[in-house]
Order: sequence, then structure tokens, then C-alpha cells
Amino acid sequence: MPATVDLNADLGESFSVWQLGDDEAMLGVVTSANVACGFHAGDPALLLDTCRVAADRGVRVGAQVSYRDLPGFGRRFIDVAPDELTAEIIYQIGALQAIARAAGTSVSYVKPHGALYNAIVTHTEQARAVAAAVHAVDARLPVLGLAGSAFFSEAQRLGLRTVPEAFADRAYRPDGTLVSRREPGAVLHDPSAIADRVATMVTSGRVTAVDGSTIPITVESICVHGDSPGAVQIATTVRERLLAEGIDLSAFS
Amino acid sequence: MPATVDLNADLGESFSVWQLGDDEAMLGVVTSANVACGFHAGDPALLLDTCRVAADRGVRVGAQVSYRDLPGFGRRFIDVAPDELTAEIIYQIGALQAIARAAGTSVSYVKPHGALYNAIVTHTEQARAVAAAVHAVDARLPVLGLAGSAFFSEAQRLGLRTVPEAFADRAYRPDGTLVSRREPGAVLHDPSAIADRVATMVTSGRVTAVDGSTIPITVESICVHGDSPGAVQIATTVRERLLAEGIDLSAFS
Amino acid sequence: MPATVDLNADLGESFSVWQLGDDEAMLGVVTSANVACGFHAGDPALLLDTCRVAADRGVRVGAQVSYRDLPGFGRRFIDVAPDELTAEIIYQIGALQAIARAAGTSVSYVKPHGALYNAIVTHTEQARAVAAAVHAVDARLPVLGLAGSAFFSEAQRLGLRTVPEAFADRAYRPDGTLVSRREPGAVLHDPSAIADRVATMVTSGRVTAVDGSTIPITVESICVHGDSPGAVQIATTVRERLLAEGIDLSAFS
Amino acid sequence: MPATVDLNADLGESFSVWQLGDDEAMLGVVTSANVACGFHAGDPALLLDTCRVAADRGVRVGAQVSYRDLPGFGRRFIDVAPDELTAEIIYQIGALQAIARAAGTSVSYVKPHGALYNAIVTHTEQARAVAAAVHAVDARLPVLGLAGSAFFSEAQRLGLRTVPEAFADRAYRPDGTLVSRREPGAVLHDPSAIADRVATMVTSGRVTAVDGSTIPITVESICVHGDSPGAVQIATTVRERLLAEGIDLSAFS
Repeated sequence: MPATVDLNADLGESFSVWQLGDDEAMLGVVTSANVACGFHAGDPALLLDTCRVAADRGVRVGAQVSYRDLPGFGRRFIDVAPDELTAEIIYQIGALQAIARAAGTSVSYVKPHGALYNAIVTHTEQARAVAAAVHAVDARLPVLGLAGSAFFSEAQRLGLRTVPEAFADRAYRPDGTLVSRREPGAVLHDPSAIADRVATMVTSGRVTAVDGSTIPITVESICVHGDSPGAVQIATTVRERLLAEGIDLSAFS
Repeated sequence: MPATVDLNADLGESFSVWQLGDDEAMLGVVTSANVACGFHAGDPALLLDTCRVAADRGVRVGAQVSYRDLPGFGRRFIDVAPDELTAEIIYQIGALQAIARAAGTSVSYVKPHGALYNAIVTHTEQARAVAAAVHAVDARLPVLGLAGSAFFSEAQRLGLRTVPEAFADRAYRPDGTLVSRREPGAVLHDPSAIADRVATMVTSGRVTAVDGSTIPITVESICVHGDSPGAVQIATTVRERLLAEGIDLSAFS
Repeated sequence: MPATVDLNADLGESFSVWQLGDDEAMLGVVTSANVACGFHAGDPALLLDTCRVAADRGVRVGAQVSYRDLPGFGRRFIDVAPDELTAEIIYQIGALQAIARAAGTSVSYVKPHGALYNAIVTHTEQARAVAAAVHAVDARLPVLGLAGSAFFSEAQRLGLRTVPEAFADRAYRPDGTLVSRREPGAVLHDPSAIADRVATMVTSGRVTAVDGSTIPITVESICVHGDSPGAVQIATTVRERLLAEGIDLSAFS
Repeated sequence: MPATVDLNADLGESFSVWQLGDDEAMLGVVTSANVACGFHAGDPALLLDTCRVAADRGVRVGAQVSYRDLPGFGRRFIDVAPDELTAEIIYQIGALQAIARAAGTSVSYVKPHGALYNAIVTHTEQARAVAAAVHAVDARLPVLGLAGSAFFSEAQRLGLRTVPEAFADRAYRPDGTLVSRREPGAVLHDPSAIADRVATMVTSGRVTAVDGSTIPITVESICVHGDSPGAVQIATTVRERLLAEGIDLSAFS
């Protein structure tokens, strides 16, 4: 039974005059901040501020890399060539590394965003391209993602450390994959029920799937959201429940 | 009399399917490559290729930072707030640092591009913003620019090394500033005359101004262009003349 | 004494996943909607929705044209060449014309946004460029802006109808120009005081300047904001006060 | 046997300082210009110039609409939602309509570009989205594309006129589809052989497929390229051969 778990959330996702999420609040909840890198969200000035607050709060910073797609917030699959994708990911990580250093912290992991995250669960070429980018920047950078994904296979082939995460508010199929957002019941909404579920995942290594069966799940980090007042409340409830269960919240090693 | 001078040129300025300049040829001419950082030109994949070839040829890589202005190629003044400009410059340098490392080299200086270069000759706030960005990334990074500029003053205040450059093909006013491109005679075109002039600048520390007077000029690097076949020929002629004069061409220290 | 005035506000200024303002509420307040054209804000799909709701509510649609500057929300001066600016404005108006037609309405005026609005109060070349663009698209399109501006002079030279607007929540100098936002007292905040002031402007053609003097003001339209809950409340209060004063709210002819 | 055929080519595909193709030359070759709309290439100022020259030469202007993808030149599939795609296409057509009118001409057809062109051969939802956009702008606008495509089916369902084109320099499979560019022999290079082939297509309604079989082909327009000196030469050779065969070159009705 793990005594420790990481809480991660997407941050730095505002752009220009447009605000998204309550980064200030979430930086009081999470132990790891997936900071956008400017390709789906995040101006440099915002990213610098976000990294500064993360540094102040002792929250670890990761690079949340994306397709180059501001108009689509990185949520549309783009059939980008692997070589171009590799270079784009290197570029994003490097940009955030400099921003993070200027803010007194550093990039200590990489997590793909949105459509890229989903694509490289199965898209081997793009998965390999992303893994190669992380490896090229720094072979010691862990990657955060989905256990069993093509991305994890490719990352492991290159010797990268892979950190499996679970989603606090998503329903699972019996095979351990997520229920599609297009299906009913895919997203859980009750803060207390979500907190119960997360506590069970972390303490027992098991989760109840959508068909009622109990399945094993490997969790080093829990992904929570902060893009609405309701989401911040869920994240806060999850954090408090885990602490009440005696679980240590700290960034993965 | 200096026995050594650096030759620098802007590279990596293609974008998407669009080619600009003959990077391959210029990497055989220059000792320092001002590589674009994606804000006025340069896709990540192109930048990676450019840095690889620079590494192969032993050409030093600098970050050619710009206003965020792809549609204007960084050639229009933008009244960006200093804090935003600082963050944008940090972002660009970091992005190119990661690209350069992945290519087996590193970013070893910073040179502003286009309208930003011109603005910070006199625009103190933006000059300070750019200097602060370089300092925040790495206080040991030299900056390449115009002697006597606000940018150099601000950079020196922060303890940055400033490397003054001369333009091979531009006419100078008696006060050491450049004749505006809008005035006749601002740009020189004859390769042999340009090469003579550069050799004189380097060996004597003097240049003939547009009014016929001879003025002192401090030159550690010569800027040549490569964005047309004629420009490549001029750059090649300058290189050969300097070598013929016994001047050592090597990146500034 | 005018019996009629127009109320205008900026709409369609969200982008991608990012929301700005409460367009739904504001379309119940205003008689003219300055709809963004995608250069500082507004995806095509959002613009289409905004135009559809405007058409349903009988709110007139204008093209809110801008510098090409999504990262800066069109709020930074860009030193764009006049010919390029003209073409960019034509492009934006045309794009919104097609969107508006598909939504069952049409573009019936043009209003510059942000830094462009401010620049062409005095920047004659850019003012001429914008006026030329409107004229090239349709010489019958009125332009909404500041009385006494270079933009109005240039527009009138081309025979365009100019519609002067006043700002509900801004302080005026004795010479009729706006107090800069950087000065104290530049922006008014009390809904009731703002509504009084607007009612006085419309009924008397006069406004009290920041020094206490009373100055004449020509107003065919009142600009209200909707980018915060407080702004919507102010706009609503202004509307109700004008109606209570027996003033007819309708789009300028 | 058709006595008339249209020649079309992609134009207005430069961007910022970057040149692509020889629009000047091609406007002396073709009868229809597929002018970019700014989403994959083409600044407004360039598009205005291109439309002006087209108007001068009596070349018809069409809107070459694309995914929103400047960094990829519209050559990567993007999984954009149909409603967003419809709005983006309306926006592009409208933008070019205003530009064309300002240049003294008009948009008289629509042709999808690059990855969008390829996607909607089979992607029914995106095909429907594009057809709906054209219909929403002007139900009398013909669309230029591939006979037998999902795009043509959807366009015909809405009552749009569909104009089938053939590619001068591409090899065909026995079933009438194009040989993929990844396969050997997909692209023909010899100007004279290409001209022969096009003349045969137009006069006989038949083409020799890659396996040597002869297949029927319906051609109202021939697509030629102008993005390299070699391409311009091929286009010119095709034009001259068709004229020599007594075929009338004119824009489709």
C-alpha cells in the first residue's frame, strides 16, 4: 500500500486577456503543476508568473506539451510528421525550462496535453516522437501519462521513467481504459464520491469499473482539474480526504 | 590592430514550406549563426536542422530573438509591455537552448532581430526588458548589437558582455549611426567594395562615413546577409578578403 | 435635443475555449454589436453564433476591426505599413460580412478596436488606411469612432458617414478628449452616476469634464462594456435610465 | 468531345517575406486562380495584389479554402469539429470576397486546399461541413474538386454545381483515384509527356492508368502547379499544347 501520492493539475492555461482556471487556488492544492508551454495556451509572461507562484509554494513544475494549436486549445488531433513533432516538443520543453529557471525552479517532468495525450495512447509514431523529444532534452526527465499506453512503451524503450496517473473524476472500463467522454457516466461530479474513490485507488490499488467489477490500477499521481469553481472544489475535497486518510501528498520522485 | 574577427549572419529564417536564404551556403561562410527562435521565423524542425549543421561545421549558435510577429517577420515595432517582452525573450532563448542541445551544440550569445533590434537602440524600457531576459537565462551570455545603443547600456548595467558589430553592406553617418534604408546610398551592393571596406574596418578600426569623413568604429563581429544569391556572394567575398588579409575568422570569445 | 441614441458594445471577443464577457446578456442591452473579426479575438464559430443571436434580437452588427494581434488582444500599437493595414481591414470586414450573412444579418458599420482605435485618433497614415479599407468594401458603410479624430477626417474625405460615440464610463478633459486610463479618475465605476451622466449627455449635448467645466459633446452612440459582471450591470443601468428618460434606443441610421 | 477546358492553379501562397511560386507567370498561363485565403498562406496585402493582377489579366478568382494551419501550410489533417469547419470556411470565403471586390473582381468558385482537399474525398462529416459553408455564403458558387468524392456528393445534395478537375502531373490508378505521392511514379515530370496526356484527357475523356489500362475521366478543369520554375514550365507547355490542339482555354461556366 502506497503511503504517498502526487496530485497533478493543468495550469498556466490562460492566454492574452483570457483567463482559464484558478491557478492561485490550485497551486494550494496540487503537488505537481503541469504548466502549459505556449502551444495550446499560456503566454510567456503568464507562464513566468505561474512558475514563480509554484516555486513559492513548493509545487513541482512539469512541461505540459501540446500540438501547436492555440485556436483548438490542443484538443484536435493533428497529423503532424514525427520529426516535426519531436522538434516541437523539444522547443516547448526548452522554452518552459528557461521560464522555470528564471522563476527559481525547474522543469522536472513532462506531460502531454489534450489530443496529443489521447493520440499517443495508441499512435505509435507520434508516441515515439514525443518520447524521443523528452529523451533528447534530458534523459532523466520522467513522463507522466497513462499506464499501458504506446507512449509509455516508447518512453521505457528509451530508458525514461514513466509515472502512471489516474483521473480523479473519470469512469474506467473493466480493461482499465477510460470511458469515453461521449458516453453517459464518463465523468463523475460528486466531490465526496470522487474523493472516496481516489482514496480507495491510492490505498488499495483498485478501482470500481463502470460495470461494477473491481480492477487493479497503478497510481503514482492523481490528475485533478481546476478549470471551474466546481473543479477546484473537487480537487480540494480530494486533497483533504487523502490527508485525512493519512496519505502523504508529495511530488513523485 | 585586431587579428581576429567574427562573421555573423541570420539563419533559420525559413518557415513552414517557405524558404528564405541559403543556410547551407552561409554555414560555410560565417563563424556565428544568429538562429531564429520561432517568433519571427523558424519552425522547430528547421531550427533543429540548422543547429545540427552549425554543430557539424563548428559554427557557433546564437539566439536571434524577436517580437512575436510571424506575419510581419519581426519587422514592425510592437509596443509590447516590458514585462511581457522579458518573458517572451526568455521563452525564445530557452526554446533554442533545448533545440541546440538536442543538436549537439548550445546557445552562446543573443542577438535581437529586426524591429526589436532597431527599437532598443533608443527605447530604454524595451532595451532593459531584453537585457533582463538574457540576464535571467544566463548572466554569462554575451549580447551582439550596436555600440552606443540603449541595449548595450542596459546590458552592461547588468554585467552582460556586449559584442559590437558592424554591417558589411551599410553606409554610416558621421556620428557612427547607420544611414536609414529609406535614404539613397544606405545599402552597398558591390561585393569587392564591401570587402575592401570591411577589411579596412577590421584592420584600422575606421570606416569612411557617407559624407567622406573617416570615423572610428569598434568591431568584434561583422554582420553579413544570406537572404539572396547576391547576398551569399557578398558574404563569401568578404570572408575571402579577410582571410587574404591574414585576419583570423573566429567566433568572439 | 436628440430623442434617440444608439448603445454599442464589443462582442464576440472570446477565443478557443476562453470566454470573455457575457454576450448573451449584452445582446439584451445594446442596439449595436461591435463583433470582433478574428484578428484580436473571435473564432469563426463563435462569430457565427454571436451574429445569429444578434439577428434574433434585432441588434445591428458592426465589424470591430483590429491589428492582427491575438496574443495582445489588439491592445498594442503595431507599426504596420498602411497598404498592409488597408488589406487587413478589408479582409476582416469581408470575413464578418460572410459570417453575418450566413447568420441572417449583415455588417452595417465598422468600428476599430483597441490600440488601432487609439492610434488613428492621431496617426494620419493608419487612419487613412482604415478609411480606405471601409470605402473599398462599401462606401455606404458608416464608421463609429471619436469625433475630431484623424480617422473621422479621413473617412469624411472619402465621403463615409461618421458616427461619433461617447464612452459611458470615461472621464473627459476640457478639450473633449478622454482622460488617459493611467490617470486617476479616468474610469467611472458607479452605475447610477454613469447612467445620470449618459442621460445628460444625450439630452443636453453636454458633459461635465474632469475639471468641473461643462463642455459640448456630440453623441449618436454610447459605448458600454460587457467584459465583467460589473460592466454588464452598468450597461443595464444605463439602458434603463435612458428608457426612463423617454429616450428612444435604436441603432443609428 | 469538349472543345473547352479550364486551367487552374494555386496562387497567393506566399506569406510575410516568404515567396512561393511565380504568381506573375502563372497568371499568364491559367484561366482560373485558386487564391489562398490566409488560413494556410497568403497575407491580405498579397491576396489583394494577386486579385488585382488576376482582374487585369481576365483570370477568374476562386477561394482556396484550408484548415487553419499556417505552420503546416494546410497539409496536415486536423480533426476539427464540423461546425467549426463550416464557420472557418465561411470566414475565409468572405474575407477573399471583400479582397476580390476591392480588386475589381469577385470570387466565383471554391476549391479546398491540401489536407482538407484530401480529407473530404472520404471524410463525410468534414465534406458536409465544407459544402454547407459554400452553400451558406452563396448557393450559386461552384466547387472545384475530385469527381466521385464525398465532397461532391455533399455539394450536389445541397444543389451546388460541382466541377471535376484532373491533375496534369499525377498518375492515376485503374479505379480513377490518384496514385499516392509516397509510391514511385506518382508524379510525372516530363513537360512534353504531361502535355500529351492532358491533351488526350481533354479530347478523348480518357487517361492511361498506372497499370497501362485506359480509363474514362471527366474533366472540366486541369490543375497545374506553379510552385517551382519547373512547374511553371510544365504549365506553360500544357497550355501551349492545348491551344495547338485547337482546344479553347476558358474558365468553366
